[in-house]
Amino acid sequence: MSRDHARPDGVSPPDLRPPVRAPSHAERCRTLIATARSATLATLARDPAGYPYASLVTVAFDEEGCPLFLLSTLAEHTANLVADARASALVAEPMDDARDPLAIGRMTLLGACRRVAADDPSHAAVKAAFLAAQPSASYYVDFRDFGFFRLDVESIRYVGGFGRMSWVAGTDYRKAEADPLAASADGILSHMNTDHAEAVVAYARHLAFIEDAASATMTAVDRYGFELTAATAAGPRAGRVAFAEECTTPDAVRREVVTMLKGIRAAARGESTDA
Amino acid sequence: MSRDHARPDGVSPPDLRPPVRAPSHAERCRTLIATARSATLATLARDPAGYPYASLVTVAFDEEGCPLFLLSTLAEHTANLVADARASALVAEPMDDARDPLAIGRMTLLGACRRVAADDPSHAAVKAAFLAAQPSASYYVDFRDFGFFRLDVESIRYVGGFGRMSWVAGTDYRKAEADPLAASADGILSHMNTDHAEAVVAYARHLAFIEDAASATMTAVDRYGFELTAATAAGPRAGRVAFAEECTTPDAVRREVVTMLKGIRAAARGESTDA
Repeated sequence: MSRDHARPDGVSPPDLRPPVRAPSHAERCRTLIATARSATLATLARDPAGYPYASLVTVAFDEEGCPLFLLSTLAEHTANLVADARASALVAEPMDDARDPLAIGRMTLLGACRRVAADDPSHAAVKAAFLAAQPSASYYVDFRDFGFFRLDVESIRYVGGFGRMSWVAGTDYRKAEADPLAASADGILSHMNTDHAEAVVAYARHLAFIEDAASATMTAVDRYGFELTAATAAGPRAGRVAFAEECTTPDAVRREVVTMLKGIRAAARGESTDA
Repeated sequence: MSRDHARPDGVSPPDLRPPVRAPSHAERCRTLIATARSATLATLARDPAGYPYASLVTVAFDEEGCPLFLLSTLAEHTANLVADARASALVAEPMDDARDPLAIGRMTLLGACRRVAADDPSHAAVKAAFLAAQPSASYYVDFRDFGFFRLDVESIRYVGGFGRMSWVAGTDYRKAEADPLAASADGILSHMNTDHAEAVVAYARHLAFIEDAASATMTAVDRYGFELTAATAAGPRAGRVAFAEECTTPDAVRREVVTMLKGIRAAARGESTDA
């Protein structure tokens, strides 16, 4: 069994290729919240005292990316927060049976989580943001035993899948933007993998330097480029390809990937002329 | 806006019908774990110290229903557990976009979570149980920076959806059995709702006492009976119907629901004869 996972960094072969531009982890975190509708809230239990207590909640986010919850005073987590505001929230990409749960992007947002009182100046904005994300909450938002809570994000642990993780400062997170392709990424990936499978293999071989790619699947797309995994004789390999310039719309992505394919074909013609 | 949710118990109208037999909450908890493949682990962070820290993990369960994890020593939650074993795990039914997240069954298992050392007598059984539930973990189970952890369940907070919740003692949980229909329930529900929609309406009207049901959907089935929601002029209503005797196989359920329908039809003929 391989021991690579435990290999000290210094032993790894150096990667001499220039870095490929990619979203910062703060940007990846802000992108994660674009699709999140539920989260796991961790609070400190009263009984058994001091135990970390994980519970399911629905969630919305304010403009700074801080989680907003609508909680019943009858619930354990609410009594926990009133006694001790220290909390975290796990926010993850949607899970499906086909994916390894550990390969999905997720983050833990840590901070104090306090009630937003009805007379708080931000209450109306918090309520509007929550109902926009959770329309069915309109049935109980005005029950007297429900109240809004806001988790004031101080730091974030981001895990983007195997081997991609870091701590993100709350200040960086609050300033960062969600990727403009967040809502359209699934459609782009589905279209490319279904209708342009040969092009994706060409990107893998010529732009991601996986020369022996037998097949390839585009796995992620963002304003700076896209990611893919390729099947090779030595097993699956992952790669990333940068766009020549930022693509903030699906149409810009379409133009960019067409240009890439033309470039690959022109280079191939050039090589065969040289031979 | 209704204030019913906050209404004290004493004000509710008394329900004079005999109770319908249903799984205990301990049994519902054991049934929940039959399909769980991931969980949220809550640990106590070292920095910021004492904060509850929620993170995503894959999970298996031992014979007593205690969660088993295969954790990397490089991960935050692992360092947290080594410093303080107090933990909980949120285990939930699979979520899909169509369902209200707050309507799904879930539970928080609380207890101490400690490493199962390689020379521990239970290590082989823990490894076998984990790999049976998580076959893809075979790729890294023997990496030297991965180790097994077991959460020794002391108490459980069960939430079965709106208004169905309780604390379950660890001793009751360990002794309880998963429902024998857990693996076949989805297929039974799909079959009944697709192919026997009229029968489900009849069950709603005649056996769940929702006389004005316009349509109905079977939402859960277990050895003791089934649950349904019916559309009525006054909005959706939920009900439960008990089997005459325990059904531990899909075939037994089929026989039981056919018998129920015959009984309803015979009663209807009897009434029309009386008229």
